[in-house]
Amino acid sequence: MSAEELVSFACRLADAAAEVILPHFRSQLAVENKGGAAGFDPVTVADRDAEAAMRALITREYPEHGILGEEHGTRSGSSEWTWVLDPIDGTRGFMTGLPTWGTLIGLQKGERPLLGVMNQPFTRERFVGSPVGAELRGAGGVTRLSVRACPSLQRAVLSTTAPEMFAPDELARFERVRRGARLTRYGADCYAYCMLAAGFIDLVIEAGLKPYDIVALIPLIEAAGGVVTTWDGGPAHAGGRIIAAGDRALHAEALALLAAP
Amino acid sequence: MSAEELVSFACRLADAAAEVILPHFRSQLAVENKGGAAGFDPVTVADRDAEAAMRALITREYPEHGILGEEHGTRSGSSEWTWVLDPIDGTRGFMTGLPTWGTLIGLQKGERPLLGVMNQPFTRERFVGSPVGAELRGAGGVTRLSVRACPSLQRAVLSTTAPEMFAPDELARFERVRRGARLTRYGADCYAYCMLAAGFIDLVIEAGLKPYDIVALIPLIEAAGGVVTTWDGGPAHAGGRIIAAGDRALHAEALALLAAP
Repeated sequence: MSAEELVSFACRLADAAAEVILPHFRSQLAVENKGGAAGFDPVTVADRDAEAAMRALITREYPEHGILGEEHGTRSGSSEWTWVLDPIDGTRGFMTGLPTWGTLIGLQKGERPLLGVMNQPFTRERFVGSPVGAELRGAGGVTRLSVRACPSLQRAVLSTTAPEMFAPDELARFERVRRGARLTRYGADCYAYCMLAAGFIDLVIEAGLKPYDIVALIPLIEAAGGVVTTWDGGPAHAGGRIIAAGDRALHAEALALLAAP
Repeated sequence: MSAEELVSFACRLADAAAEVILPHFRSQLAVENKGGAAGFDPVTVADRDAEAAMRALITREYPEHGILGEEHGTRSGSSEWTWVLDPIDGTRGFMTGLPTWGTLIGLQKGERPLLGVMNQPFTRERFVGSPVGAELRGAGGVTRLSVRACPSLQRAVLSTTAPEMFAPDELARFERVRRGARLTRYGADCYAYCMLAAGFIDLVIEAGLKPYDIVALIPLIEAAGGVVTTWDGGPAHAGGRIIAAGDRALHAEALALLAAP
């Protein structure tokens, strides 16, 4: 299998998910509460059915590949390849009608993320990262993506989903970075990592991520020239506390500020 | 002049602004710093030129109308009509490549906002509020907008642009509401008010707004069945501390929590 063939298949998965999801976007959704009394974790029919559609395609075309999905769990494969799926990353944005959610489709070889797609079918934007490069496929054609230089925090645009995503000790560490940044934006979910790859955001810092929240975005960020790790500089594919930067010098500066205590 | 005629003209203004703005969206912008050393207040060429294009149209077609614009200030008219313009509401979102900014075009008769348009040309969405009703004109046609019922805060989805928009005493008051809400979303700028009118967000609370940040949105919210006031329940058209709610009971509950001290 070539990288090209796998990217092409990932795009078919994105199309299949979009077909299921789009009719539900801004419809009056039947929202369930997956988190029980402890929290509010919305899951929609769109979310579950879109993942089921992608899993069916993978099972048919690549039965030897493993699958790790947000909604329907893990299926081990007989090969070193695993598809990592989040049908709607940013479910809360989806529920509130905002177009900053996306379908995340990643492919790992062993533990290493090899390619990834973020698909936003409402705005018709598809962000693709692979060994071949990072690109945006949109209504206006294909654009190569590249991070921008931003070697110092005081010039940096920082993005995170919400202050509430951090535990108290994490928030104190995050705030050290935020206070030093030029500007902080909230609420963009996976879209923020794509705008980092496109050179419009310099730094994304989050916590509590699952593997399916980040695996698909790693090849995009890296192919665009950026760096993404955990807060202690380790590999990002297992999720947790994540920092992505367009500029390596900025990554190092922020990492030092995030270090406990 | 009929409401229909004025809405039609507001849409021509939106088209004129979009033509100027879109080529600059996600281009490498020359960002100036309007705020000087004290703060970061980005203004783009797109912002200024789009307002100039709208002002030229108004001056030609309705020379007797006044204009209040973010970028080029106030021009008094010889009539009771005033156009209130924000070419790019959500300049920071615009700068970071996110599609949640919009062109705001409001028309006041005396102090009363009569009609308003929020135009998002990248997603091709136009939200229109007037005495005739509230609607979304999009790629899929025209949709009538209506707020949803949500009589209690514990079931409400709350939206605000960023915690940093509040002064410390305002933040303490806002936090009382946030802690009681089901879910809080950040970062949506004018888009949040449109999603409130569309029935996907229940409550928007902000502070430090200028008249041009809110005037165009008042007719939209009201025509969709919602309510928008200052934090002390006064009229919203002068800006400042603003609360919008889809449900009047929710508005009353949040207003009580926002009351000082």
